[in-house]
Amino acid sequence: MYQPVMMTPIDFRSDNTAGAAPEILEALKKANTETAPAYGQDRWTLELQERVRELFANPHAQAFPVMSGTAANSLVLSAMCPPWGSILCHESAHILQSECNATSMFGGGASIRGLAGNGHLLTPESLQDAFKNTGWGDNHQSQPSVLSLTLPSDFGTSYTLDQISALSETAKQRGLSIHVDGARIANVLAGQKISPAQLVRSSGVSALSLGGVKNGTLSADAIVSFDPRISEQLHYRLKRAGHIASKMRFQSAQLIAYLQDDLWLRQAARANAAMARLSAGFMDMGWNVLHPCSVNMAFVQMDESFAQRLWDLGLLFHRHPTGWARFVTSFATRSEDVDEALRRASSLR
Amino acid sequence: MYQPVMMTPIDFRSDNTAGAAPEILEALKKANTETAPAYGQDRWTLELQERVRELFANPHAQAFPVMSGTAANSLVLSAMCPPWGSILCHESAHILQSECNATSMFGGGASIRGLAGNGHLLTPESLQDAFKNTGWGDNHQSQPSVLSLTLPSDFGTSYTLDQISALSETAKQRGLSIHVDGARIANVLAGQKISPAQLVRSSGVSALSLGGVKNGTLSADAIVSFDPRISEQLHYRLKRAGHIASKMRFQSAQLIAYLQDDLWLRQAARANAAMARLSAGFMDMGWNVLHPCSVNMAFVQMDESFAQRLWDLGLLFHRHPTGWARFVTSFATRSEDVDEALRRASSLR
Amino acid sequence: MYQPVMMTPIDFRSDNTAGAAPEILEALKKANTETAPAYGQDRWTLELQERVRELFANPHAQAFPVMSGTAANSLVLSAMCPPWGSILCHESAHILQSECNATSMFGGGASIRGLAGNGHLLTPESLQDAFKNTGWGDNHQSQPSVLSLTLPSDFGTSYTLDQISALSETAKQRGLSIHVDGARIANVLAGQKISPAQLVRSSGVSALSLGGVKNGTLSADAIVSFDPRISEQLHYRLKRAGHIASKMRFQSAQLIAYLQDDLWLRQAARANAAMARLSAGFMDMGWNVLHPCSVNMAFVQMDESFAQRLWDLGLLFHRHPTGWARFVTSFATRSEDVDEALRRASSLR
Amino acid sequence: MYQPVMMTPIDFRSDNTAGAAPEILEALKKANTETAPAYGQDRWTLELQERVRELFANPHAQAFPVMSGTAANSLVLSAMCPPWGSILCHESAHILQSECNATSMFGGGASIRGLAGNGHLLTPESLQDAFKNTGWGDNHQSQPSVLSLTLPSDFGTSYTLDQISALSETAKQRGLSIHVDGARIANVLAGQKISPAQLVRSSGVSALSLGGVKNGTLSADAIVSFDPRISEQLHYRLKRAGHIASKMRFQSAQLIAYLQDDLWLRQAARANAAMARLSAGFMDMGWNVLHPCSVNMAFVQMDESFAQRLWDLGLLFHRHPTGWARFVTSFATRSEDVDEALRRASSLR
Repeated sequence: MYQPVMMTPIDFRSDNTAGAAPEILEALKKANTETAPAYGQDRWTLELQERVRELFANPHAQAFPVMSGTAANSLVLSAMCPPWGSILCHESAHILQSECNATSMFGGGASIRGLAGNGHLLTPESLQDAFKNTGWGDNHQSQPSVLSLTLPSDFGTSYTLDQISALSETAKQRGLSIHVDGARIANVLAGQKISPAQLVRSSGVSALSLGGVKNGTLSADAIVSFDPRISEQLHYRLKRAGHIASKMRFQSAQLIAYLQDDLWLRQAARANAAMARLSAGFMDMGWNVLHPCSVNMAFVQMDESFAQRLWDLGLLFHRHPTGWARFVTSFATRSEDVDEALRRASSLR
Repeated sequence: MYQPVMMTPIDFRSDNTAGAAPEILEALKKANTETAPAYGQDRWTLELQERVRELFANPHAQAFPVMSGTAANSLVLSAMCPPWGSILCHESAHILQSECNATSMFGGGASIRGLAGNGHLLTPESLQDAFKNTGWGDNHQSQPSVLSLTLPSDFGTSYTLDQISALSETAKQRGLSIHVDGARIANVLAGQKISPAQLVRSSGVSALSLGGVKNGTLSADAIVSFDPRISEQLHYRLKRAGHIASKMRFQSAQLIAYLQDDLWLRQAARANAAMARLSAGFMDMGWNVLHPCSVNMAFVQMDESFAQRLWDLGLLFHRHPTGWARFVTSFATRSEDVDEALRRASSLR
Repeated sequence: MYQPVMMTPIDFRSDNTAGAAPEILEALKKANTETAPAYGQDRWTLELQERVRELFANPHAQAFPVMSGTAANSLVLSAMCPPWGSILCHESAHILQSECNATSMFGGGASIRGLAGNGHLLTPESLQDAFKNTGWGDNHQSQPSVLSLTLPSDFGTSYTLDQISALSETAKQRGLSIHVDGARIANVLAGQKISPAQLVRSSGVSALSLGGVKNGTLSADAIVSFDPRISEQLHYRLKRAGHIASKMRFQSAQLIAYLQDDLWLRQAARANAAMARLSAGFMDMGWNVLHPCSVNMAFVQMDESFAQRLWDLGLLFHRHPTGWARFVTSFATRSEDVDEALRRASSLR
Repeated sequence: MYQPVMMTPIDFRSDNTAGAAPEILEALKKANTETAPAYGQDRWTLELQERVRELFANPHAQAFPVMSGTAANSLVLSAMCPPWGSILCHESAHILQSECNATSMFGGGASIRGLAGNGHLLTPESLQDAFKNTGWGDNHQSQPSVLSLTLPSDFGTSYTLDQISALSETAKQRGLSIHVDGARIANVLAGQKISPAQLVRSSGVSALSLGGVKNGTLSADAIVSFDPRISEQLHYRLKRAGHIASKMRFQSAQLIAYLQDDLWLRQAARANAAMARLSAGFMDMGWNVLHPCSVNMAFVQMDESFAQRLWDLGLLFHRHPTGWARFVTSFATRSEDVDEALRRASSLR
């Protein structure tokens, strides 16, 4: 008799399926013991500003808590790109594929132009090609205004610091400013042992979408702006987008705890390590792992029937109709979960 | 020697300065003990739907958690009003005065038309006047499409059920649909002992902005739609506005706890009672209380010097440059706070 | 027996009902004798730039032909006002009442805030009042950014140069820039014998919507910008609004002919003179003319039955349901038309 | 001694460089002999409606005169596609490459998704591929809502009626509606001897951008809608975009004359014939003509130095930096111009 999913599930569907870190819940509890001014005038939000200035070693750094990566990306890009401009990114970028026109909506029509590139990464050459096909100053065409780098890509690949510098330099020669979509930026920093300050310095980034929710906050992502002209716009743009929390202290308290004592980097390192172990196991079994697993995601080619049998063993993961599966680990993935997953998987032939 | 603010502050600045209710923090803790699908596919968000269908006795009721009242108002209004339409409301309405063009932005240019009315309340006559001055079908003019009622008004005044019915009927005769901005709706329901189902029935409301944060949630307000065509739009509109939380369960869990066992109505009743006691005390002292205090707000006319002296006694409240002060109580205001505030105030002559 | 409209109609419905001046048709014919680069690279458009620099005595003056006053107003205002800003104007202003949310649409949500004022005119005091009720820098509120003056108002009233200067000065003290909606500006300039250069100097205007169609062009109005930052935006904003004519020469040729040898001012003077004669006749008959007729419009209070009888005598005019009639003359109104109209009207008692 | 451009220029830069047809100027002159109601209430605009209903053999056909192809495309697409939707087209489509984000702006963020396809043409397979990569109903992704076919493509290639039917059928199976960008539609209809009614029937088109300016009107293109729900929106959408001419009769009169006695098709046939003759000559000389010249455009691969020498012989054409030249004929191109151009070109080796 067929017995589906009798085993305890092990969840690799997404780092979004994990809950919040205990440190975050603790921070919320502590922030709840007094009254505080609303709309960001509280002492937590003020403290958060100091933290990001230190962390990114940049006196202009300013943090704007928001509740989702889509909010962070689309709102900051609308402040960086004129309505007749375009944002260049890889054609698989999250801002182009997975945010339902958010940037064009907030940006008054600003368009996103996806460029090709191996391994979901851009090269200076791909940028140069796009520039060659641009009628600069021709008002029939949207004008390239921002380069957005997804760090890591939605397929788990990452740029090195040198690659980021080279892309940034190429972009700046044509007057573009730089945005980093860092929904999982901690995984890159931890994986490559890059400091936040190094990233800012090497990339010449004007603004960064700083992911928190996938890596342990409850509801807090942030925009970090390094340009006062962007910050001034965000003051208004966030409000009119409904992204100024009245009890902002609870958003800021999460972010303070998240950045405190490198919690974010330690959590990301844990997720990365779990994935390293998992994907090594996949490769040992001869599975077709599609990209080098530099962070906390593995993509494996497998047919539907194999995927179903894995699923029946209690492994939860994302199945794409075109024949691949995505496995994601998080700060909450335990090494015994990984081992047990590999043990079960190894039973399949 | 001058000794400013030596006394323990008593905070009447806003219901936004209070923290979250213990029940809400408890709900977050409980929702954090397992993995769960992201983006609203979790069991809390599913359960929330059942709750609102029961609570509002409406099979079409659908709840969309958002993080602010501005998000709730502007996003649902953008789904209700065509870009060339206008939303009618009182000229002091929050959507017109305090949301920095959010509705026009999300609404693709839709405009908000403020109408006059005593006590910050509209009458069927004020609506009729607006209709008379409208060129229906004339494409030079934005077409009235939605009536938005603020319940209570930002000045603490409220409609009765009969008044709401009369306004709704007048609006519907000209094809407008009805929106309720219920940032503090619990205070009205508790104050007038109206049930949520009665409100929906009498108002013929298509969608409601259901306030939570001012009354004890940590970060969760909601849109409640009663029209499947609005709900279908919100599915996309919220995503592209960055208002679909990846860990949505934490938003939904707050709202479930908030509605559970009438917590929201009990908390609002507490805030109302505190204000009743406070404003009665103000009137006993002969202060000029500007509007009948039907909910949890009092507006008092006072000059700058008097306001400063009160402030020096540790009373915190909102001071408006044109000569009035606003006092707001919340679910967290204790009756001893009220008594102490009145005791201090009575020392002033 | 009832005999409706047997008499030759005399058309006072609007200056929009007149056709184009012969000089304009002639200019089109001449511009049609060669091939020319598209999209504004032609010699007519180039020449137009010289003309406006001379005419307005301003080296930054730049003309952008558009096809309607709504296009001129809404596009230039979208370049002058940030999306979170507001444009202040009289509450009867055309941009607020008769353009179907155009400015908010192009402006990404920017709002228009109508202020009260006698005779459809603003005063420095009404501006000051609005400023007092503004939370400057408060992101809950749209920030006043532009003052738009309608010259003349849609009710035929006009500011003097001194009044314009005073308003401009008040507005600039709070950082607002100045826009003039000049759909009928020629009628004011001709009426008050103000030169275009004087208007620009006294008003400190950043951009002007220069009406042409109501006063004799076939399809050409224009934006005249005096600020290079606005001009740079318009280069793109007009294109993406579909307001860059491919055969731009035909728009520019109309405008050159319109401004040539003061044709525009001569035509406006003719319209004004016809109205002066007509309204004097109305007053002689004891009609209730509502505003001083400074330009080419008269508003007369009359009941429906009287209006119908006038209409039956072949007089065409705009009838408003609330009990007034609007008469408009144009460059094409002949003095014999006026005399005949008065002759017929005088037959009514 | 070097003698640049001594010869009479022969202009193949664009069909936009030609002027207006004499019939159009005549129509303007005739329409200028009376007063007429403004904003489209005139008898020309009324008559135009009858003409398009007959011409397209469709009782719902409704024409909306606009002043540019960009206006036609972007405004009608904004009425056909929800703000969270996407418009599918070929990756070289004019709406994507040459309209500076117009559709996304008017469409409240709606995006344009370019698909690959040989010869600048789509196939049902390319559509099916796009559909397979779409998460239907997934709110992270913009939802394919409209198929826009450029007829002919900007590179002079055209679909057959059968190809159009097949594409339309594929698109409609997934609920998309059909738009035709017909900036040069007359050239396709004349070239393939397709009647307007056949096109509408075979394509199942909901709305058509009907080019006029490139083919002989002075300032009039049009949207033709075949869906009353689109027409109702356009009533407002055009006004708030500044695309309702006050003296609309002059736009409508042009379009009536343009469609009268097949003027548009006769003019297009003339342009096509000139191009057939010209490109045949190019091929006789062994030039590398890049696409079959089905309409009035030829693309020729040539290096910069060859292009410069041609230019020096007085031939005007569009030179693209990546090594090709575009030649366009128009209704005004005379066969002696073509012969002379070929004579001069043949002198180059």
